[in-house]
Amino acid sequence: MGERTESNQTAAGQPPARGRPRDAERDRALLEATVQVLQESGYGGLTTAAVAKRAGVSTATLYRRWRSKEDLVVGTAVRWASDLGPQPDTGGLEGDLAALLRDKADTLEGPGGRLLHVLIGESAHNEALARVLDTAIIQPVRDRAATVVRRAVARGDIPPLEDAHVLADLVVGSMVSLLFLTPDAAHRATADDSTSGEAAIRELLPFLLRALGARPT
Amino acid sequence: MGERTESNQTAAGQPPARGRPRDAERDRALLEATVQVLQESGYGGLTTAAVAKRAGVSTATLYRRWRSKEDLVVGTAVRWASDLGPQPDTGGLEGDLAALLRDKADTLEGPGGRLLHVLIGESAHNEALARVLDTAIIQPVRDRAATVVRRAVARGDIPPLEDAHVLADLVVGSMVSLLFLTPDAAHRATADDSTSGEAAIRELLPFLLRALGARPT
Repeated sequence: MGERTESNQTAAGQPPARGRPRDAERDRALLEATVQVLQESGYGGLTTAAVAKRAGVSTATLYRRWRSKEDLVVGTAVRWASDLGPQPDTGGLEGDLAALLRDKADTLEGPGGRLLHVLIGESAHNEALARVLDTAIIQPVRDRAATVVRRAVARGDIPPLEDAHVLADLVVGSMVSLLFLTPDAAHRATADDSTSGEAAIRELLPFLLRALGARPT
Repeated sequence: MGERTESNQTAAGQPPARGRPRDAERDRALLEATVQVLQESGYGGLTTAAVAKRAGVSTATLYRRWRSKEDLVVGTAVRWASDLGPQPDTGGLEGDLAALLRDKADTLEGPGGRLLHVLIGESAHNEALARVLDTAIIQPVRDRAATVVRRAVARGDIPPLEDAHVLADLVVGSMVSLLFLTPDAAHRATADDSTSGEAAIRELLPFLLRALGARPT
């Protein structure tokens, strides 16, 4: 995603900050079309021709931006799924953890989540996708989880943890499980007039706080 | 796998319980071929012709057993991934939880895991697969987790939990995260001359025990 080199934005995969407006529009249309086609057809069913048609551009235009189908999907995934907001310091473990969970839920429930869902499956037999999944999407969450733990230990809220990265696996894993693997959880939340993500956070937060050794409140 | 075809097990998606030994062999060959082709090509790339060829049977034989590609993959998934062993009662929360994690790790690291990995991705845009993933594969783990919690509460090891099913999401989710999403975790374990699953269990167990409110040991 060359455009990142031309901007000073901090979120990975932002569209070009400069350049002709026409290019930025085409870029956005291509990325949105990629998400839509992936969602309908899966990775195996996606063709660059279908994406170009959906975006209303020629395949030549698509190939000027992205060398291949894999390149297009990887670029789209990095752009959407790693688009984390700033990490707030709420001054408390519960607040920091809730913010981390909310950020993850927002990602998984948005277009990036649908893309991530497809990528998880594809990474079973595509090493390039497995790599991008780990480095561009999971690793930032691990870093955030480590920050949450470090702050809590520094405040004396929890004892030091040998395996602080396990929190990241619990956060990512349980959200993936609740939002991707158990549709019932999503339905339950919708009936409450809340998002699935918020319901998942309410359920998970007390477990995660105890897992980290936080004092009961 | 084939031995189960001659028993009276109740698990969904079992191949015919009776028939000539020849049929059982063909069945086993077809299911193994399905796992291999899925792993190499993904769901989108799998064709019934490729599976039949790999299994050394005609496509007509394949279609006598399975009506469609989807039917074949769902049947294979149910058969492999829900193959849980008996649930041991170790008399303690840590032992019961370790057994649950080990069972899940064994499933995810075996052929059923590769299949499950592909299914998770495909369930993003295939409702039949999403349903089978939930009912035949996730639900049994939720039931087991509920049993572990119920026993521990009955023994007075932990306080009653309002959201006991959250344990299942933590178990499934964190194993999926560690074994599917973070290849580094797998590498770390291999260097220890242990399985990725055992390493994941060692890391997760103390977190999960604390999450459930178990007294520190």
